Amino acid sequence: MPESHSPFVPTERTRVKRLPERGKYDRETVYAILDAALVCHVGYNIDGRPYVTPTACWREGTHLYWHGSSASRMLRTQSHGIPVCVTVTHIDGLVLARSAFHHSINYRSVMAFGNAEFIEDADYKLAALRGFVERVVPGRWGTLRAVTPQELKATSVLRLNLEEVSAKVRVGPPKDDAEDYALPIWAGVVPITTAVHQPEPDPKLSAHDLVPPDVTTIRLGR
Amino acid sequence: MPESHSPFVPTERTRVKRLPERGKYDRETVYAILDAALVCHVGYNIDGRPYVTPTACWREGTHLYWHGSSASRMLRTQSHGIPVCVTVTHIDGLVLARSAFHHSINYRSVMAFGNAEFIEDADYKLAALRGFVERVVPGRWGTLRAVTPQELKATSVLRLNLEEVSAKVRVGPPKDDAEDYALPIWAGVVPITTAVHQPEPDPKLSAHDLVPPDVTTIRLGR
Repeated sequence: MPESHSPFVPTERTRVKRLPERGKYDRETVYAILDAALVCHVGYNIDGRPYVTPTACWREGTHLYWHGSSASRMLRTQSHGIPVCVTVTHIDGLVLARSAFHHSINYRSVMAFGNAEFIEDADYKLAALRGFVERVVPGRWGTLRAVTPQELKATSVLRLNLEEVSAKVRVGPPKDDAEDYALPIWAGVVPITTAVHQPEPDPKLSAHDLVPPDVTTIRLGR
Repeated sequence: MPESHSPFVPTERTRVKRLPERGKYDRETVYAILDAALVCHVGYNIDGRPYVTPTACWREGTHLYWHGSSASRMLRTQSHGIPVCVTVTHIDGLVLARSAFHHSINYRSVMAFGNAEFIEDADYKLAALRGFVERVVPGRWGTLRAVTPQELKATSVLRLNLEEVSAKVRVGPPKDDAEDYALPIWAGVVPITTAVHQPEPDPKLSAHDLVPPDVTTIRLGR
C-alpha cells in the first residue's frame, strides 16, 4: 500500500483556529495518536440526526479501519458512502491551574473527515482483520481457530482514507495569568495513563499450561 | 434539582437491538458510567455534515454538562438547540477468544440524544463550573483565585437533559463456539484501566510547601 509522507493540508474543517499551537498536521503525530488507540468514535447521520458510535479501529498505511456485524445499523449506514467524522482521543493528564479558568486537560486527539468505504473483497477483508488482531496482540492470529467463510460474511470492515485530518495536542504544565503565579495555590499536572494488566484466564480453559499473551507487547494509549 | 429514579424508556434510537443483553436502561448504570468519565464525544451537524468533538463533561442530577470557549464553533453551533448525540466510553479489557470472530472488548458506554441548552444565567453557570472542578478534584474550588466576570463571559456551558439515553456494557470472559473450547488456544481477558498518577508540580510553583491534591480522591474510569 503506498504511503504518503507529506503533511495533511488543513481545510476549513480541520484547521485548529482557537489555540492554533495545539494543531498538528504531520503524519507522524496523527499516525502515532491513531496507533495508540483501540477505539474511535464514529459520527454519522441517519435522517439528518447525529449518531456517535464507539468502535474498535486500527490504521494500516493511509487508511483507518473499523469493523462490526454486517447486521449493524451503524455499519450499514456508513457503508453507503455517507460522510463520517472519526475522532480518537487520549487523555494524558488533569492540568490544575491557579484559577478555574486555566484548568485544562492534557490530551492527544485526531479528527478525520471523509466518506467511509466498505471492503467487499474477502481476501482483503481477511487481511485487514488479521492486521487488527496482530496490531493489538502481536503473534496471536496464527494461534487462533481459522476464520470461516460464514464468519467473514457476517463481519463488515470499513475504511476511511486519511486525507482531511488534523491532530490536536496539549502538553505541559498550566498556563496561568502572570499575576497569579505569586498566589499560594498548588498547580501542576496529575498524569493519567491507560494501564494494561496481567491476563485473566478464561475459567473454561481446559489445559492449564497454555501460554497467555505477552502483555508487554500490547501498546495502548501511547 | 429534582432527580427522577425511573429507568430510561428505550426509543428507536436507544434500544440495543443486536446483543440486547448488553443494553442497560436503569439510571444507576447510566449515571455511574457518566460519572466515571472526564471526557465525552459530542456529535452534531454543521451544514448537514457530522462532527465529533471530544470535550470535558460532568453530570449533575438529570443533566449532562459540558463547556468551552464562548468563541468555539462547536459550542456556538450546539447552543442553537440543534440535535446532539453525546457518547461516553470506558474500555475495560481485551477479550481474547479462541477464534478471531469472538474476540471482543469489555466496555461501558452511554449514548444520549437530545437538544443541548445554553446556560445563560451567570450564577447558574458559575455553580455548574464549580460542580465540575469539585467533582474531579474534591475541595479544589475553594483554594482557587476567584473567577472574574470576564472569564465567566468567555466560558460557555451547555447542558443536555438526560431523557433519551441508554448504556451498553460487556463484561466477563470470551464466549466461544461450543466446539472451540477443546482447542489448545489461550483465552481470557487482558484488563485495561485508567491510572491516575502522583501529581507533577508546575516548575513555576513559587512556594515548595504547597500541598498537592489528594489523587486518591480523584476517581476516573470507575
